[in-house]
Amino acid sequence: MSGERLYIYDTTLRDGQQTQGVQFSTPEKQQIAAVLDELGVDYIEGGWPGANPTDSEFFEARPQLGARFTAFGMTKRAGRSAENDDVLAAVMNAGTGAVCLVGKTHDFHVETALGITLAENTENISRSVEYLVAQGREALFDAEHFFDGYKANPAYALEAVRAAYEAGARWIVLCDTNGGTLPGEIGEITRAVIEAGIPGSHLGIHTHNDTESAVAGSLAAIDAGARQIQGTLNGLGERCGNANLTTLIPTLLLKEPYASRYETGISCDALTGLVRASRQLDDILNRVPFRQAPYVGASAFAHKAGLHASAILKDPSTYEHIDPGLVGNERIIPMSNQAGQSNLRRRLSEAGLTVDKGDPALARILDIIKQREAEGYTYDSAQASFELLARKELGQMPEFFEVKRYKVTVERRKNKYDRMISLSEAVVVVKVDGEKKLSVSESLDETGNDRGPVNALAKALSKDLGRYSEPLADMRLVDFKVRITQGGTEAVTRVIIDSEDGQGRRWSTVGVSPNIVDASFEALLDAINWKLLREGRH
Amino acid sequence: MSGERLYIYDTTLRDGQQTQGVQFSTPEKQQIAAVLDELGVDYIEGGWPGANPTDSEFFEARPQLGARFTAFGMTKRAGRSAENDDVLAAVMNAGTGAVCLVGKTHDFHVETALGITLAENTENISRSVEYLVAQGREALFDAEHFFDGYKANPAYALEAVRAAYEAGARWIVLCDTNGGTLPGEIGEITRAVIEAGIPGSHLGIHTHNDTESAVAGSLAAIDAGARQIQGTLNGLGERCGNANLTTLIPTLLLKEPYASRYETGISCDALTGLVRASRQLDDILNRVPFRQAPYVGASAFAHKAGLHASAILKDPSTYEHIDPGLVGNERIIPMSNQAGQSNLRRRLSEAGLTVDKGDPALARILDIIKQREAEGYTYDSAQASFELLARKELGQMPEFFEVKRYKVTVERRKNKYDRMISLSEAVVVVKVDGEKKLSVSESLDETGNDRGPVNALAKALSKDLGRYSEPLADMRLVDFKVRITQGGTEAVTRVIIDSEDGQGRRWSTVGVSPNIVDASFEALLDAINWKLLREGRH
Repeated sequence: MSGERLYIYDTTLRDGQQTQGVQFSTPEKQQIAAVLDELGVDYIEGGWPGANPTDSEFFEARPQLGARFTAFGMTKRAGRSAENDDVLAAVMNAGTGAVCLVGKTHDFHVETALGITLAENTENISRSVEYLVAQGREALFDAEHFFDGYKANPAYALEAVRAAYEAGARWIVLCDTNGGTLPGEIGEITRAVIEAGIPGSHLGIHTHNDTESAVAGSLAAIDAGARQIQGTLNGLGERCGNANLTTLIPTLLLKEPYASRYETGISCDALTGLVRASRQLDDILNRVPFRQAPYVGASAFAHKAGLHASAILKDPSTYEHIDPGLVGNERIIPMSNQAGQSNLRRRLSEAGLTVDKGDPALARILDIIKQREAEGYTYDSAQASFELLARKELGQMPEFFEVKRYKVTVERRKNKYDRMISLSEAVVVVKVDGEKKLSVSESLDETGNDRGPVNALAKALSKDLGRYSEPLADMRLVDFKVRITQGGTEAVTRVIIDSEDGQGRRWSTVGVSPNIVDASFEALLDAINWKLLREGRH
Repeated sequence: MSGERLYIYDTTLRDGQQTQGVQFSTPEKQQIAAVLDELGVDYIEGGWPGANPTDSEFFEARPQLGARFTAFGMTKRAGRSAENDDVLAAVMNAGTGAVCLVGKTHDFHVETALGITLAENTENISRSVEYLVAQGREALFDAEHFFDGYKANPAYALEAVRAAYEAGARWIVLCDTNGGTLPGEIGEITRAVIEAGIPGSHLGIHTHNDTESAVAGSLAAIDAGARQIQGTLNGLGERCGNANLTTLIPTLLLKEPYASRYETGISCDALTGLVRASRQLDDILNRVPFRQAPYVGASAFAHKAGLHASAILKDPSTYEHIDPGLVGNERIIPMSNQAGQSNLRRRLSEAGLTVDKGDPALARILDIIKQREAEGYTYDSAQASFELLARKELGQMPEFFEVKRYKVTVERRKNKYDRMISLSEAVVVVKVDGEKKLSVSESLDETGNDRGPVNALAKALSKDLGRYSEPLADMRLVDFKVRITQGGTEAVTRVIIDSEDGQGRRWSTVGVSPNIVDASFEALLDAINWKLLREGRH
C-alpha cells in the first residue's frame, strides 16, 4: 500500500450512543475506546463533554490512545462570543487535541430551528472555528443536513462550509443527517463542493443507513474526492444506524479500486481482529451478534446451498468474495470440519493443552462443541468453560467435589414494618473427599439488601468445600450476562459469568438451561472448577 | 406515476431459503406467497421443482396469484437434449408461466466446476432457452457469477448472455453471485452489456449483500438501464442475504430520481402494508424483527437525541427522510434522560393521554423517570411501563388487584432414575375485589421439562385473578431480556419482557432489582396491568 491517505473517524461513542436502548457507562466507553484503538482508527470521538455526566466523566479520565481523541460540541450560539459560550467552554475544557463542532448549513434549519439569520449562522461558524484554531486545536466542522441543505439552497450551504474552511477547519464533514440521500446524489454533491473550492483532502463524509446505502454513500463520496470517513462499529447509531465501519474498513483495505489506490491507518494484521472487535462491542451491549453482518457475521461465509458447498471445497474463490481469515472470520460448511481441527488445536494450546495433530479426541471435542452450540452454549466468549470441556474429553480434568442437590427460595412479602421486601435463601449439598456437606446461605448483603438467588447459591456453594474453600476466598463475580437464545426448538436461557480473583485473573464461564437459576448454577460451577484448576488443587 | 416500467422479482421462497437456519414448510411458502402477492410484486419465484419434496409439493398445490408464478431450475446438462434432461423436465412439469434457468457465464466455473468446454456451455444455454420458448413459457436466464465472469473474460461472459437473449429469453438476469462487486462496477458492467447489444429492457439485476451494498448495487444497475430487480423480503438469503426488497421497494416508489422516472406494479396503498408484510415474514420464521431495518424497523423513525426530538416536534421533516406512515411505520420519540416536557406530552398523547401544557404532573413524571433511570430502569424500550408510570402520576391508573406475597422455589436433585433434574414452583397470593386468592404453579411444560422460576411465577400469577383471568388468556411472553446494570452504586438486574396477545398487540415492560426473580416479577406485573388496561377492564 502506498496510495493516498484515507482517514477513519469513529463516532461509536457519540453518534453510536443514539441507538435506541444503548446507554454506555464510563467503563464501557473506556473498553470500547481500547477496542477501536487496537483496530487503528485515526480519530475516536468520545462524546459531548458537558452534555451529560457520563460523557464528562469519560473525558476527565482521558484515555491513553494512539488515535486522535476528539470532543464533540456545537458552534457558539448567536449573541455571545465564542470565548463566552458556556456550552463551547465545557467542550474546550476537555482538553482534546481535536474538536468537532456541529453547525447548521441548511437555510430552513437556521431560520426555523435556530431562529437566527443566515448571516448570523455563518458568523457563528467562522468565530467558533477561529476560536478552536487560536486555541491550538485541530478543528472539524460537522455540516449538519448538508445534502438536504445543498439541494434546498446550494449557495448558502456552500457559504456555510466555506466559512468553516476559511476559518481554518482541518476537516469539513458533509453530513447526511436524515439518511435519505442516495449514493449517486452524495457523489454529485461532494464533487460540486470540491469544484466550489474546498479540496477533497479536507472533506469528510458522514452518512446514515435509512435507505440501506450508508456504506455505498461513503464510497461514492470517496470516489468524488472526500478523504475522511465517519462511521461506527457494527453500524450503531440513531434510527437505522450510521455508516458501518465494520464493513467499510475491510472494503477499503481489501477491495478494488480502494485497496491499491488508498492507504489507511489500519494494518492488515489489525484487520484480522475485526470479528473480535465486533463481538466485543456486542458483548458490552449484551446484544446478539447479527449473523448476516457483512464480513464479520457468523453466516457471512456460511455456504448452505449444496452446489456451492461442494464447489467451495474445490476452490473457495468460487463462492467467496474474500478469504474469511483476512477479517478473522471463518468459513462454515455443513458436514465438513476439516478446517475446524487446526483451529481447535490453536485454541487448546492457548489454554496450555498440547494435543497432537490427528488425535481422535480433537474430532470428539469438535462434535461436543457443535452439539452444545446447537443447544445454545457459546464458547466464543466463555474460554474457561471451553477449557474445562476439552480437559474432560482429554482425561485431564480432576473432580474436586460433587454437587448432590441444591434448593433456592425467593420470597417477596411484607416485613414487620409493613414494607414489601424480598429475600432469597439457598441450600447446597456437596460431597468433598468422601464427606457430605450441607450449607445454607441467604442473599442479604452488608446493608441488609437482597442480592437475589444466584448470589445466595454462590455463597452457599463456596461456604464449605473442605480444603477447597480457602483457595476460593479471593474469587468474586464481576459480571453476569443473561440472554434468551434458541436451543434446538425451545427458547433457553444462556448465562455467562465473568469472575475475577485476587491475582487479577479474569475468566468467563457459560451455563444453559430453560431455568435461569440452573443455567447460572452451571456457569458458577465451571467458574469455581476453573479457579481450583489454576490454583493447582489436584 | 407514468414513467418507464420496472419489474420486481421476488426470490424469498428460493434464494431466501438459503439463509442459515431457514427451512420453509409448504404451508409457510403459501403464506409468504400470499404476503408478496398482496404487496404487488411482479414475479414470485417459488423454488426448484424436483429439487426437494417441499418445493415439489408447493408447486403441485399451485397457489392462485396475481403475480407471475415462476419455477427455478438449471440449463440442460451437456450430452443430452433439453427434451431428455430429467432435471429440466421436473421444472417444466410444474407448469408455471415463467421459468428461470441458472447457467454459467464465468469461464473458470464452466471449465472447473462443470468440466465442459465453453462452446458446450453456450450450446446448453441456447438449447434450454429455445426449449422453454417453444413450450410457450416466459424464459429467464439467470447468469451466475456474471460480474466476476465479465471481469475475467468479458468476451465469453457476453457470448453466454447473448446466446440466451438470441434464443428468446425475455430476461437476462445479471447475478453477482459472490456478492463482492461494488455498486460502481455493477453500473459500469451493466452499461457494457447494453452497449454489447442486450437492451436494458431485457436486463435484470440480482445482487447479494456481502459488502452491504446489495441495494446500492441494484440501484446502480437501474441507473445503467436494467429494468428487472431481484431480491427478497427482509433481505433473506445465503451468507449476508440478497438485495432487500423491503428497502428497495420504498426507495423506488418514494425517492428521486426513481419515483418520478419509473412505474412499478406496487401501489402507494399497498406500500402502507410494507411493515406488516415484513413482520409477517418474521413471525413465520419466528425471528425477532430487526429494529434498525431501513423503513420498516421499529427504530427506523425513533428519535433519541434531545436536539433532534425537539426539532421533530416542530416539523417532522427536520430529521425524517420520509413520512413513516407511507410504509405503515410509526414515529417513536423514546423517553430518555434528555427529554423535555414537550417531548413527554407527545409521548403521552400517543398513549391516549392528553395533558395540558404546564400541568405540574409533567415535571413530576420527568423527575420520576430521571430517578428511575438512575436506578437502572430504561423507558426507551419499555413503552408500556412508561405509560403505566405516567397514568399512576396522573391518577388514571386503576388498581385491578394487589399482590400480597409470593414465594418461588428452584430445586435441583436426582430423580428416581438417578438423573439430575430441576424443578421450579411458585405460590402467589393476590387480593382481587376484596377476596384473597392463593395460587400455586410449577414450571413444567407439556414435555415435562422445567421452564424455570419466572415461568412458574407467570403461571401462578395469572392462574386465578377472578374476573381478570379471562382477558389475560390470549397473552403470552415472546421475549425476555436480562442485563446487569449499574443502579446507583450497586449492580442491579434489569429485565425487559415483551408480550403479545391474540390481537397482534405487542408491548414491552421493565423491572429492576438486584434479585433477578423480583425484577422479572415487576416486569410481569406491568405487562399484565397494561393488558387489562387495553382490554378496558376498569
